[in-house]
Amino acid sequence: MSLEIKNIDKNYKDKKALDNITITIEPNKIYGLLGRNGAGKSTLLNVINNRSVPSSGDVLLDGNTLLDNEVTLNQVYLMSEDNLFPSTMKVKDMFKISEQFYGSFDWDLAEKMLEEFELTKKTTFKKLSTGYRSIAKLIIALCVPCDYIFLDEPVLGLDAAHRELFYEFLIETYETSPRTFIISTHLIEEITNLLESVIIIDKGKVSVAEDVSTILETSFTLSGPKTSVLAAVKDSEILGQEELGDFISVHITGQLPDNFSNDISVSPLNLQNYFVQLTKRK
Amino acid sequence: MSLEIKNIDKNYKDKKALDNITITIEPNKIYGLLGRNGAGKSTLLNVINNRSVPSSGDVLLDGNTLLDNEVTLNQVYLMSEDNLFPSTMKVKDMFKISEQFYGSFDWDLAEKMLEEFELTKKTTFKKLSTGYRSIAKLIIALCVPCDYIFLDEPVLGLDAAHRELFYEFLIETYETSPRTFIISTHLIEEITNLLESVIIIDKGKVSVAEDVSTILETSFTLSGPKTSVLAAVKDSEILGQEELGDFISVHITGQLPDNFSNDISVSPLNLQNYFVQLTKRK
Repeated sequence: MSLEIKNIDKNYKDKKALDNITITIEPNKIYGLLGRNGAGKSTLLNVINNRSVPSSGDVLLDGNTLLDNEVTLNQVYLMSEDNLFPSTMKVKDMFKISEQFYGSFDWDLAEKMLEEFELTKKTTFKKLSTGYRSIAKLIIALCVPCDYIFLDEPVLGLDAAHRELFYEFLIETYETSPRTFIISTHLIEEITNLLESVIIIDKGKVSVAEDVSTILETSFTLSGPKTSVLAAVKDSEILGQEELGDFISVHITGQLPDNFSNDISVSPLNLQNYFVQLTKRK
Repeated sequence: MSLEIKNIDKNYKDKKALDNITITIEPNKIYGLLGRNGAGKSTLLNVINNRSVPSSGDVLLDGNTLLDNEVTLNQVYLMSEDNLFPSTMKVKDMFKISEQFYGSFDWDLAEKMLEEFELTKKTTFKKLSTGYRSIAKLIIALCVPCDYIFLDEPVLGLDAAHRELFYEFLIETYETSPRTFIISTHLIEEITNLLESVIIIDKGKVSVAEDVSTILETSFTLSGPKTSVLAAVKDSEILGQEELGDFISVHITGQLPDNFSNDISVSPLNLQNYFVQLTKRK
């Protein structure tokens, strides 16, 4: 039961926000959806979740369109900056309405999260701080019974200890009942270990859709004297480079060159740096 | 011309949000205002900037109260999640109104920031992505002529490259025209080098108000066999500790013990870890 995003375009008057986006999202995997500010991530998430109408293209779940289709739409959930409830509503009532709408709700997990995050469920949403608003929305996202959960900037406003706690709850619920999570975040370093695959959106297009392990196994930085390094990488796909005098660091993707002189040092490129190199703007 | 926050209390029906907060904020320094989610940071910033009325206490600028005083209020600026303008307004009109209100506006810096962040000033605010909304508000905060600029979560939703760019602009404008910045953020590691002092708020109270250099010079982690380490730190102020079998790491603040056995390794504690240890909840 894959989620297929097919040839999605989204045009605004003066801008092509999404340009022929085609991705297949598989069941029971954790994805990272990465992109620079303004790349189109939130637009894509809104289209997939029927909150915004695409200019063309379709989103199919098990072959059935999601767009304007209440039955299949019940299988996807989007947590984003938007608040779906009146801000005067109490947290516990937000939970109850989510249960009514989606058919069930993981109350055990919700209670555990309320306790660990020290959030009182009698509080009205508007009285919560920025961080605690995110926490209330995160609890709902992890407790609804949907197969595809999209999290747009889930840790916005969360302190470091609360971010860590959320990642732990995510792993726990994913292991207990596998489903698909698609997480859009700018804090790439701290989430790398959770992700199985990443989709990188750059200027409205899919730039990379790949398993994280593949990216990490095929991305390197070669550093050393300029002449040695440039000779070594002459057939490589270069992501970016930094120079300092006669010294150079070149970031490459693909195979590590077979032979290179021993004045070159090689280090792996982490996902955050891979992303930064790939989406650098000239 | 210091900003004095004197005995500020803020009580809600069921909660003491701020408990006798007294701080002096000096001119021409960059402060970090740190605290766990829900500690009271935003409440404090709203009180100082007259957006929320304290239950008791006062805020004085050069001896004159700030609260409900339009003349002195013109010297402080708060950038926060709140949007002060109608969301249908264009970015350039937000700049113009800020100029009218505060008397002048650094248009050179604004144009430079628009260009480097690739933000079009003809765009209406509501059409901007989360990250670009932060960017528009940040430009205003750096371009108004106020002596005290409060930034509540300034990099919310910004990608790593844009966060770096913002920090560079902040240093540049601070060096060109020194004034006071008070920055509240959960991304402590990446901002440590910018800060001269920190104020840590914990459960509505001031827990630490200290120069960063002093904190870094007097915070250590001692690691090694449990018996050796516990003997070494017996007179120290302990922030926290982690144990693994017979091995222990103890985080201390204050003087490094004079004599300790050579099976102990000592490392400095960075600001992020200092904060985490200090504000851990039981």
